[in-house]
Amino acid sequence: MATVPLLPDDGPPEVAAVFADIRATRGADYVNNFWRALAMDPAQLADAWSAAKRTMAPGALDPLTKELVYIAVSTANSCGYCVHSHTAAARAKGMTEAQHAELLAVIALAGRTNHLATALQIPVDAAFDRSVAP
Amino acid sequence: MATVPLLPDDGPPEVAAVFADIRATRGADYVNNFWRALAMDPAQLADAWSAAKRTMAPGALDPLTKELVYIAVSTANSCGYCVHSHTAAARAKGMTEAQHAELLAVIALAGRTNHLATALQIPVDAAFDRSVAP
Amino acid sequence: MATVPLLPDDGPPEVAAVFADIRATRGADYVNNFWRALAMDPAQLADAWSAAKRTMAPGALDPLTKELVYIAVSTANSCGYCVHSHTAAARAKGMTEAQHAELLAVIALAGRTNHLATALQIPVDAAFDRSVAP
Amino acid sequence: MATVPLLPDDGPPEVAAVFADIRATRGADYVNNFWRALAMDPAQLADAWSAAKRTMAPGALDPLTKELVYIAVSTANSCGYCVHSHTAAARAKGMTEAQHAELLAVIALAGRTNHLATALQIPVDAAFDRSVAP
Amino acid sequence: MATVPLLPDDGPPEVAAVFADIRATRGADYVNNFWRALAMDPAQLADAWSAAKRTMAPGALDPLTKELVYIAVSTANSCGYCVHSHTAAARAKGMTEAQHAELLAVIALAGRTNHLATALQIPVDAAFDRSVAP
Amino acid sequence: MATVPLLPDDGPPEVAAVFADIRATRGADYVNNFWRALAMDPAQLADAWSAAKRTMAPGALDPLTKELVYIAVSTANSCGYCVHSHTAAARAKGMTEAQHAELLAVIALAGRTNHLATALQIPVDAAFDRSVAP
Repeated sequence: MATVPLLPDDGPPEVAAVFADIRATRGADYVNNFWRALAMDPAQLADAWSAAKRTMAPGALDPLTKELVYIAVSTANSCGYCVHSHTAAARAKGMTEAQHAELLAVIALAGRTNHLATALQIPVDAAFDRSVAP
Repeated sequence: MATVPLLPDDGPPEVAAVFADIRATRGADYVNNFWRALAMDPAQLADAWSAAKRTMAPGALDPLTKELVYIAVSTANSCGYCVHSHTAAARAKGMTEAQHAELLAVIALAGRTNHLATALQIPVDAAFDRSVAP
Repeated sequence: MATVPLLPDDGPPEVAAVFADIRATRGADYVNNFWRALAMDPAQLADAWSAAKRTMAPGALDPLTKELVYIAVSTANSCGYCVHSHTAAARAKGMTEAQHAELLAVIALAGRTNHLATALQIPVDAAFDRSVAP
Repeated sequence: MATVPLLPDDGPPEVAAVFADIRATRGADYVNNFWRALAMDPAQLADAWSAAKRTMAPGALDPLTKELVYIAVSTANSCGYCVHSHTAAARAKGMTEAQHAELLAVIALAGRTNHLATALQIPVDAAFDRSVAP
Repeated sequence: MATVPLLPDDGPPEVAAVFADIRATRGADYVNNFWRALAMDPAQLADAWSAAKRTMAPGALDPLTKELVYIAVSTANSCGYCVHSHTAAARAKGMTEAQHAELLAVIALAGRTNHLATALQIPVDAAFDRSVAP
Repeated sequence: MATVPLLPDDGPPEVAAVFADIRATRGADYVNNFWRALAMDPAQLADAWSAAKRTMAPGALDPLTKELVYIAVSTANSCGYCVHSHTAAARAKGMTEAQHAELLAVIALAGRTNHLATALQIPVDAAFDRSVAP
């Protein structure tokens, strides 16, 4: 099931170029369904892949930490596809079983306290404000 | 505003004991509003503080990485209080401005692709399945 | 702040009629801001008030149980206004402090396990299926 | 899978009447699973169908624009069934591939900036306030 | 599909002990997939089961009311697994078809008014404040 | 309150260039708080503004329709800031009171039926599938 066709293989040149870069960047032939579906809009495909490649690269945060954050957002947004694809990506970048277990423990704790804080409608402490630089 | 009173100071002994442990653990006198509101249920207060202390401690993931994950979940769940309190906590654990900027870039990218994947209703690739151990 | 004006008092006749029914039903003069804002669309105002009055009335579930469910949905949807208004409504219908504390404990537990189940992407047990009547 | 039976065909008279109106309104014999499941509560079925028929009719906004808004809400709420059914409905009302691609681009942009604004906890500009009519 | 293996049977002693307690508490041999997946982290498994057992027990709220609240949160969070498992649990605790229909009517009403209140950005009435005990 | 400073005025050259383009594009001197906060990451600021300008421009969908979709997503994601800023933007692009009322009616209907469909866990009709092009 999907709301758009999954492009079976590389299609128009601007799509083929993105698929080729995905393969080269990952060092793997497999192109997963997200990009095959997003090929319905080649401009979005190219921009989203470019943003993903740039954003997930090593920087002030390492690539594995970034994948953990991605899983966290995807879980809270209830995006099943994204949870699957980024859990696989985190494993490919070295996530251990122990790290996965701790990640889930933090996500679960945040799920719990987010609900408590929202149900309590707690006023934000003035000490947390950073709207004026210290 | 809040749906329950904020306990002005330490109240019944089982609450006072938690507040004392918060102060000792953080090495600071300040107890933020979340715990003052949660004191409406001393058992929940004690269990939530104990879970937070245990879960956020160093382990397979370091404490700062855990705070970044917490901010990510809280953002996707739209918990304003939690975004504020855990951004402050991440700073207290050493988060730099550059790390904060990269964290937000990953959260924003995940927000974007989560919405795309959900709108496309993409079938999960068989390659991602881990329901049977490899 | 609001994205529409709050009707200061009863305005056009079809709005005044709804406000009068809110006052009569509740036995109180106060009309809260939700209805004053919704008055921007008198048809929506009349239909939403009618649905609320009908749905929240005693039936197979009692009115207090319904308010607890309302608070639960509003919390998970992060609707601050709704959490406030339905916590007040639940109190007006007799919710005790102990019931409030237990409600929050269930909401927090569900928040925690919802996040775990989504992060684990658990297949639904065949035993839960009810698509064919037993 | 479902949490209730899907009514195989028209059942009790008040359900049959709704199914007949769905068929007449759409000029098609097919009644989709949402209404077959909702038939578990004939009053809800009748009221929800009536609200859908009235709300989605031409008015100040045209029916296709309304379907695009429906897809947008359903995506952000992560309702897979609703994304599917309203994407099909939008196509039936003339949505082109180019319009679908632009819709997804706007949804993705909103997903991205919603997460940024929430992570930044930005104070609302006074200029946006409309609580008092200008 | 799942992001972790489902433990086929009881595995290490600390997991076996939890599974045994699940069976004893429920008076049934069946252990559903949630616990089999959560067994990837025996400490989380034990703590989550213990929290569920304690929180869902009779107290100021009865067990069926608690299951209705659980379904409500799980629905708003779009956790398909949780909606299924807790609808089954509510039935096991005596939820009738009429109660199920009313539960869904309240959840649907809350979904509707939550969206309205958020779109209107309604200021919270001072009358709802409980941050200072009355 | 905010988790980052709001840049009081144009700051470093790459930020000043974006603020100047915002002013030129809108034909107005006012730069709203979102961009002033996002200036904490000049690269994100430039890319997000560029994406917004490109995505919201006239195309297969007109700019007002795009703003309505933006409001819809922002409401479902409970992003208060975004609801405010895009309701103002929609008004600036000609949204009438009648269109606003109908927009809210569609959003409210979707909120209602999204919750119903998720609570019912309805299987997607095969007729909706588009994973293979027709």
